[in-house]
Parts: sequence; C-alpha cells; structure tokens
Amino acid sequence: MPSVEIVAVGTELLLGQLVDTNTPFIAGELARAGIDVRSTQCVGDNRERIAAAIRTSLSRADGLVMTGGLGPTVDDLTRDAVCSALGVGTELYEPALRAMEAIFAKFGRPMRENNRKQAELPAGSRPLDNSRGTAPGFIAFANAEQFVACMPGVPREMKPMLVEQVVPFLRERFGARETIVTRIIHTIGLGESEIDYRIGDLFRSCENPKIAVLAHEFRADVKIMAKARDAAEAEAMIAPLQSEIVSRLEDGVFGYDAETPASAILTLLRLQQRHLAIAESCTGGRIAAALTSVPGASHTFVGAVVAYDNAVKVTQLGVEVATIARDGAVSEEVASQMARGARTRLSAGVALATTGVAGPDGGTPEKPVGLVIFALDDGTERSNAWSFRLDGDRETIQRRATTIGLNLLWRYAKGHVP
Amino acid sequence: MPSVEIVAVGTELLLGQLVDTNTPFIAGELARAGIDVRSTQCVGDNRERIAAAIRTSLSRADGLVMTGGLGPTVDDLTRDAVCSALGVGTELYEPALRAMEAIFAKFGRPMRENNRKQAELPAGSRPLDNSRGTAPGFIAFANAEQFVACMPGVPREMKPMLVEQVVPFLRERFGARETIVTRIIHTIGLGESEIDYRIGDLFRSCENPKIAVLAHEFRADVKIMAKARDAAEAEAMIAPLQSEIVSRLEDGVFGYDAETPASAILTLLRLQQRHLAIAESCTGGRIAAALTSVPGASHTFVGAVVAYDNAVKVTQLGVEVATIARDGAVSEEVASQMARGARTRLSAGVALATTGVAGPDGGTPEKPVGLVIFALDDGTERSNAWSFRLDGDRETIQRRATTIGLNLLWRYAKGHVP
Repeated sequence: MPSVEIVAVGTELLLGQLVDTNTPFIAGELARAGIDVRSTQCVGDNRERIAAAIRTSLSRADGLVMTGGLGPTVDDLTRDAVCSALGVGTELYEPALRAMEAIFAKFGRPMRENNRKQAELPAGSRPLDNSRGTAPGFIAFANAEQFVACMPGVPREMKPMLVEQVVPFLRERFGARETIVTRIIHTIGLGESEIDYRIGDLFRSCENPKIAVLAHEFRADVKIMAKARDAAEAEAMIAPLQSEIVSRLEDGVFGYDAETPASAILTLLRLQQRHLAIAESCTGGRIAAALTSVPGASHTFVGAVVAYDNAVKVTQLGVEVATIARDGAVSEEVASQMARGARTRLSAGVALATTGVAGPDGGTPEKPVGLVIFALDDGTERSNAWSFRLDGDRETIQRRATTIGLNLLWRYAKGHVP
Repeated sequence: MPSVEIVAVGTELLLGQLVDTNTPFIAGELARAGIDVRSTQCVGDNRERIAAAIRTSLSRADGLVMTGGLGPTVDDLTRDAVCSALGVGTELYEPALRAMEAIFAKFGRPMRENNRKQAELPAGSRPLDNSRGTAPGFIAFANAEQFVACMPGVPREMKPMLVEQVVPFLRERFGARETIVTRIIHTIGLGESEIDYRIGDLFRSCENPKIAVLAHEFRADVKIMAKARDAAEAEAMIAPLQSEIVSRLEDGVFGYDAETPASAILTLLRLQQRHLAIAESCTGGRIAAALTSVPGASHTFVGAVVAYDNAVKVTQLGVEVATIARDGAVSEEVASQMARGARTRLSAGVALATTGVAGPDGGTPEKPVGLVIFALDDGTERSNAWSFRLDGDRETIQRRATTIGLNLLWRYAKGHVP
C-alpha cells in the first residue's frame, strides 16, 4: 500500500491560534483513495525546519502532501524550502503568472511584485491551478519515485485543488489501489470498558477489518474499517463483523454512520406516529437544539419550554407552586409535573423533562451541583422519573445531562425504559 | 528558549475521522509559558511508529508532550512505545491503581483486568493524577535533560492535567522564561474587511505586540500577543494598542478574552434589572442554550418557548391563527407576536423571537431556505423586526441565525438597535 505523509506549515498552528482542519480533510480523502497516511506534522514558517520536515517525510514515505506557506509575503517559505530540500532552483511558470494576472484584473486589484513570486515554482514541477485564489499549487519531484505536492493553506482554495487535481494524480501514480470503507456503530449508555468486555476478543484478533472504539460521554462509537480492492468487497468484509458486534451490544446500538441519538429518536417516534415535547430547566434548550438539528424534525418534535425561572415552570407548564415550595424545583415530583405539563399543553404524545443544578452556584448539601432529574410522561403508568449525580463543570454537566436525556428518550422510543 | 514538541496518537486522526484540537490547546498553553513548540506530529496506534516519533522528537527538542493511547484497550500503545523508545520496563504504581479503583467504586462499575494495565507506567516515571477519568498520565525521563509527558486523549481529562500538572512541571524545569500574553478583543456584526479597513495600519506595522484577526461567522476576534519577561510587562505593552483598537471598533466590541455574546448580554441586562425571554422557532433552542451556558444566567434569563409546531406558537405564545394563515409562520408579524407573547407570558422585560426556514425542505419561491426573521419586543416603540437571507446548510443557517439573534440582543442591551 502506498504511503504518503502530510505536512501543514504555519507558525499560528504552533501557537495554538488556529485548529488545523486541513490535515484531517486531506487524510480522509487519501484514506478513501486507499492511500495510507503514516504520520502528519505541523511546522512553523521557518525555511530550514520546513526543509527538514520534507526530508524526514521523504525518508519513510512515497510522497508528501503539504498545505500553507504559498502566499506572497516574506512569511511564505514553502516554495523555497521545497527547492532547498530537493536541491533544485525555481523557474517562472508563465501560465501560472497569466492566471494570476487574470484574477487580479477580475477583482480590479493591482498585482504587486511580491505576487509574481507565487508563479516561481520549483524547477520541473507540475503546476496546480487555483480556481479560488491567487497562489498556484504545484507537485515537485524528488526523484522518479517521490513527490511533494504543495497546496495553499486556505481551506476553500485547498479542498477543490486536492479533490480535483492532487487525488487524481495520486490515483494515477499508484494505479488502481485498495479503498478503505468505514462503518460506525453508535452506542449510547454503555461504558467503554463494558464494550471492551463484550467485544474485546473481536478487536484483539482483527487486523482487516480493523475495529476501534471511540468513547464520548455516555456514548461510544465502534468503528469497523475494511481495506479492499473496492467498496463492495470492503462492505462484504464488514457485514459479518457488524452483525456480530450489533448482536453483542444490541441494548446500546442506536444507529450507524451519520445517525445521531436525536435522529434515532425522531425516526422511532415518527414510525409510532407520536409527537414529542420537551421541558428543560438545567439543560437550557440543548435537548431541543439536538432534536431540531435533524432535518424534518418538525414532523415529530412539536416544541419545548425552557422553564429556567420557577415562575415559568408554574405558568407555562402548570407545575404546582406548593410542590416547588415543598420539594424544591430540583425534585422528581417537579420533573414529573414539568413532563406532564409539556405533554398536555404542547399536545404531544410523550414529553421529557429535565431539572437540576448545573452550578457553579446553587448547590446545597441535599441537592449538590451535578444533581439532575429527568422525567418522562406519556399519560400511562410507564411515566417515570430518574435522578443522576453528574461530575464536571457547568458546561460538562449540561452536556452530559443532554446526552442522558436523549438516552432515556431513545430507550423509551425503543420500548426499553424500565 | 526551551523547545518542546507535541505528538498526538490515534489512527482516527490519520483517517481524517477526528480533528485534533488537543495539539492547538497544548501549543497555546506552552506559548503562554514561554515554551517554543517547533513542530508537532500525529501518529497512528502502532507501537513502532509511536516509538519512532518519540525518538525523532527527542533528537531535536528538550522534551515531548503526548496525548492519546493511554486507555485500557489493545489499541492503547503509548505506554509501551515510551518504554520501547526510552529502553525501560513498566512498574505498577499503587497510588494510581488505588485512584482508579476509587473511581470505579464511585460509579458502581466493575473494574476489569484491562484497567489495571493503565496503572503500569514506565519505570522511573512521575505519575500525573487524572481527576476526570481512569487513565493516569505520567512524565517519563529519557535522561537527566529530556522528558516525555503523556496525557490521555480525552480533552476533558487532558486539559486540567496539562494546566495543573504538566505546565507547572515545565515552568519549574525551565526556570522563569519569557511569557506570551494574549488579549482577545471580541467583536460582533463587523465584517472582516471592515475591520481590516479600520485597523489594518496597526497590524501591518506591529511585530511585538503582534496583532491578528480571526474571523468567525458574523463575529471576529482581534488578538494582541505580547512577548515579555513577565505578564505585567506584556500587559503594559498591550494596553495602549488595546485602547486604540477598541476606540476604532467600538460599535462592535462586546467583550474580552473569555466573554461571549451571551455573557455580555446578560451582564448588560442585569445592570438594567431587566429579565429576558426567548421565543425560538428555526433556531430550535440554540439561543436559550447559549444564554444558559453562562453561570448565573438565571438572574436575568427567565426561559424560552421553542415553538416549532405552529400550534405551539398559538397556544404557548398567543400568536393569532389568522396571522399565520394570512402571512405564514415565517413573517415579521408572526415573529413580532411571538416576541410579544414570550415577553408577556414569561413575565420578562424584553423578548427576542426567531422564525425562519432552516431547510433543507420547506422553502418556497417567496420564502426560500435561509430566510430568517427576528423580532424584539420590550413593550415600547423600540420593538422591531428584521429579515435576513442566510446561506448554507441547515446546521449553518441555524448557527448563523443564533449569532445574529445574539447580536441583535447585544445591540439592544447597549441601546444600539436602530
């Protein structure tokens, strides 16, 4: 399998001022083309260090894809570094210069002398057109086997150049190759070590397809990656493993690939022709936001009341003042009344309510920061309430409570809620 | 200046399935501590390649900060790779094992044999406590001069470990050094080219402090970075530039550093002793979620109605059925009635409403996808409505509409709304 490395250039990446999203984008496109990315690097705007990174990559890979440092300023040193690493000079590429002149003319801007330098590419390079900006890219050649492909760092300019010019070059160079297909099995409510316990034997023995577990909070994704000559062959390799994993994790699997807990809930409830309402206190709109991120949510989700103030719990959801006075706003009885109020007042079939102490203030010995109470109401005896003690800062508690609320809704929609 | 490299471990990073936000976070913290990051790498879950990356970094830097690969599964190979690169064995750290047992006991989950392995650290290491998860980190030593600090890949676990344990270790090791102080001036509602026009002369002439503009959607941050011997000296270098920039951008500056549009709004309204309510249709709870992410939001924000279904607009907000029939749910009149309903029914002093077409379905020639209407109501003639045409997919439209809503609220709270 051919192997390529990725190098991103830019001092701002090394100061933590910019998150490098180019590298994962390039890595994803190369994986789809069956090209192995063994490692990636970021280096600052320093000619010697860029040249050293190029030499290091070429000592172990078939080629190198770079982004950044192609602009017109003194900080843009990738061209020079490639020349220095490969031991070649630059030459002016007339077509690249003409293309740049046309872009400046189009935008009515004067072209400065420093822009000309952008058309001076390492000798022997193959230029890459930039349809979205002034800096052309190029593919330089270290020898008959190894290349260095350089693209601008602006994602909007880099992406089409990669997809339309660099990936086709790589496919041609490496011939028809393997492809990698990834299937993601999404679980909720199962711990990472529980998943390891149930399916560890599978991923300890598999190299291709390879299995990996990616843990989120109260959620975990199991990924199956198959390398094969084409997508159909990869899918055939994935299928038996997928069904084995799903049968072992069945109580936690809510969907695949692009599905989310919210999309799984809405799909199930829509099949049951039931409408959903939400009453949120400590989660402050996050459950509604998750549900409404799903296209077509309006078929199933009718709305939510974010009842932050107690008076809103009373007036909008019909929570009894006496209950708040007796049990406090963070109580199973108030959560239950919130859920019932949301269901009846918003004319839904089922409603979920949350109330809790997100902190950092407002905690008491009996009701500490992190106590979050959930209630589900569908007008039957299946209605119920649950209390959780969550760790973390305000944001973490709000995020975890949102995931737990979605987990309860999904289990309810599946018929799993105790 | 001491130099440290960063290595992130995880095959998912090389497949483009995850954007590495750990490296920029670490790089930013190291910059603040005056430590130079010369280059960063990502490597896959492969012992030999991780060990090779460690050796490469140690050949040119004073130390190495790593994230990822410390979990309990067979894919977690960082411990082994460090042992192999440094030529040491592992030893069981009893306190780390006890801490892990305590965490499992707290959550009432069984601790499996594979978790034990997480307490086996390279011999001679200094363990790093993990207050948020099971995997302890560690600092291993290659020799008297060079170290390898390893932390988990879960950002929530890594960040406090870095800030509370690794950075203090580095400061002590490298002695008092230069520090970099960054001031962020947050603006909303000013375009990037407008900002360039107003303050471009400043950032084209400054090297230290250095000025950079980071554009978001409808928001932009201006960063001033000063390098000095200590924080006080850096602050003194920042102060005159900061006041010059703020005076030129005054109509758009809502805050500094950790402030958000939501925190700025809540601070202003709290000073005015006014309560805020929200009525959201197309933004689906996102404005409420932004407001409730601010600690103490309950002093000012009373609640929101996410009126997704038209019936909820009518029953919960008092929108007139006839208005919906005549003007449609996405109209200035409906938005105004939603705002008025939220203000009066939730007993607030001022309310913002949103209604629009987030797509991908539901657009018409007159009301295309991306049309979003906002209304503000405070019971006076300052109440008003605004229409916007937004570009992008569903998620982008929802996110942009949320920012515009917050911009309108902030300008209103400042007394700026037209």
